[in-house]
Amino acid sequence: MLSKGLIKLVNSLKHKKYRQQHGLFVAEGHKMIGDLIKIGSPIKTIISAQNINMNGAFEFVQCKSGELDKISSLKTSQDMIALVKIPEYQYKEEAILDKLSLALDSVQDPGNMGTIIRIANWFGINNILCSFDCVDIYNPKVVQASMGALMKVKVHYLDLCKTIEQLAKNTGYEIYGTFMETDSIYELELLPRGLIVMGSEGHGISTKIEKLITKKIAIPSFAAEFGGAESLNVAVATGIIVSEFARQKQELRN
Amino acid sequence: MLSKGLIKLVNSLKHKKYRQQHGLFVAEGHKMIGDLIKIGSPIKTIISAQNINMNGAFEFVQCKSGELDKISSLKTSQDMIALVKIPEYQYKEEAILDKLSLALDSVQDPGNMGTIIRIANWFGINNILCSFDCVDIYNPKVVQASMGALMKVKVHYLDLCKTIEQLAKNTGYEIYGTFMETDSIYELELLPRGLIVMGSEGHGISTKIEKLITKKIAIPSFAAEFGGAESLNVAVATGIIVSEFARQKQELRN
Repeated sequence: MLSKGLIKLVNSLKHKKYRQQHGLFVAEGHKMIGDLIKIGSPIKTIISAQNINMNGAFEFVQCKSGELDKISSLKTSQDMIALVKIPEYQYKEEAILDKLSLALDSVQDPGNMGTIIRIANWFGINNILCSFDCVDIYNPKVVQASMGALMKVKVHYLDLCKTIEQLAKNTGYEIYGTFMETDSIYELELLPRGLIVMGSEGHGISTKIEKLITKKIAIPSFAAEFGGAESLNVAVATGIIVSEFARQKQELRN
Repeated sequence: MLSKGLIKLVNSLKHKKYRQQHGLFVAEGHKMIGDLIKIGSPIKTIISAQNINMNGAFEFVQCKSGELDKISSLKTSQDMIALVKIPEYQYKEEAILDKLSLALDSVQDPGNMGTIIRIANWFGINNILCSFDCVDIYNPKVVQASMGALMKVKVHYLDLCKTIEQLAKNTGYEIYGTFMETDSIYELELLPRGLIVMGSEGHGISTKIEKLITKKIAIPSFAAEFGGAESLNVAVATGIIVSEFARQKQELRN
């Protein structure tokens, strides 16, 4: 049976303030938790109604059937909940030099954030720079959408404007910004060294960040013939753009 | 004030059976509904607490403030709800000849389905073939995620296996199937005439459909150096693949 203290702790972790205070976040479901263990994530506690057979240096708490409903963040609670230690790392300019990185300006939808972290992981992008108003990556919905990729990619919350300014000044980095209508990614030369800035779906890249963009890029639309298309989902747009950078990098090598 | 009959009708439309029976689906929010009107969607009724100023041949029902909560499908109800007539169209093999189309095998997540419809619209793909167990596109979550694109793209629910078999036999169409590890889309020649099959995130393309694939394709992963990546979200994968088809088509033309 779950203690009142544990129930209170797990429920408090639905809020960013308490996640930061305890240095913990929640992951749910044996698939997700198994993946986290496989990649060596620092797990503190696993809670499940079934006696589990998983190796690792964590505390196991067996609860009663149905008790997970009291602490789950999901509509349909899974078979297992883990408390995972939030990894600590800091943004260092040196770490992103000569690499391609992503910057997110006010991306607030948790599903999109999780999906973008998966994209970064897939394409070997190690660092994502986020404006302070982006959704917290340890939000339960981001955790579920990121499928474990959030332990492999470093996501930094920082003053995005100031960071980009310094980066451009110190390194001569190309700052790519994604807009609706401008030069096509298929026709531009995209270098495997730089920063790709993605804006929010509702408002795009903010005016003060737009001023720092050194190369504007767009995904061309082919929809004109039947009434035009409004927009692409921001995670899909990120995937398409990052893929085109990867393709051009590979073409350069060959 | 809303009549009991109207409350009952709108709430019944949360279920596929009643959507089909009434030939109606629900869209929420002035942004979405404005877009639907702009593209000439057949709107039957608009319900709002505010007196609205929109032109069109539809019935307007003014409700009391807060009443939309009783009928909304969203967690936070919007300012406006519309009942929209489900467009009627049929799958015709002739209509997809010499074009690129998408096929979805058991894509059940509503957010992914809506996002894929937006991708199709953006890249000028007019037809999506869906297996019967794909999520219904008039499900409220698909409607919201598709952002109006579902009125511009034709989505056909059919026996996917049989349809692909006939298509291949009658037309010599290339049937592209997306898999985790096989030849890279960056290196294959992708023709602007054919069918791209996407499987579900959990299970990929089903065995019986896999047998009909004439060309297997994959998005290469660049994550190997830090522990590998599990997978990409199916909507993101669709976006990346369709974008590469579009790029190669444009390259051919130039």
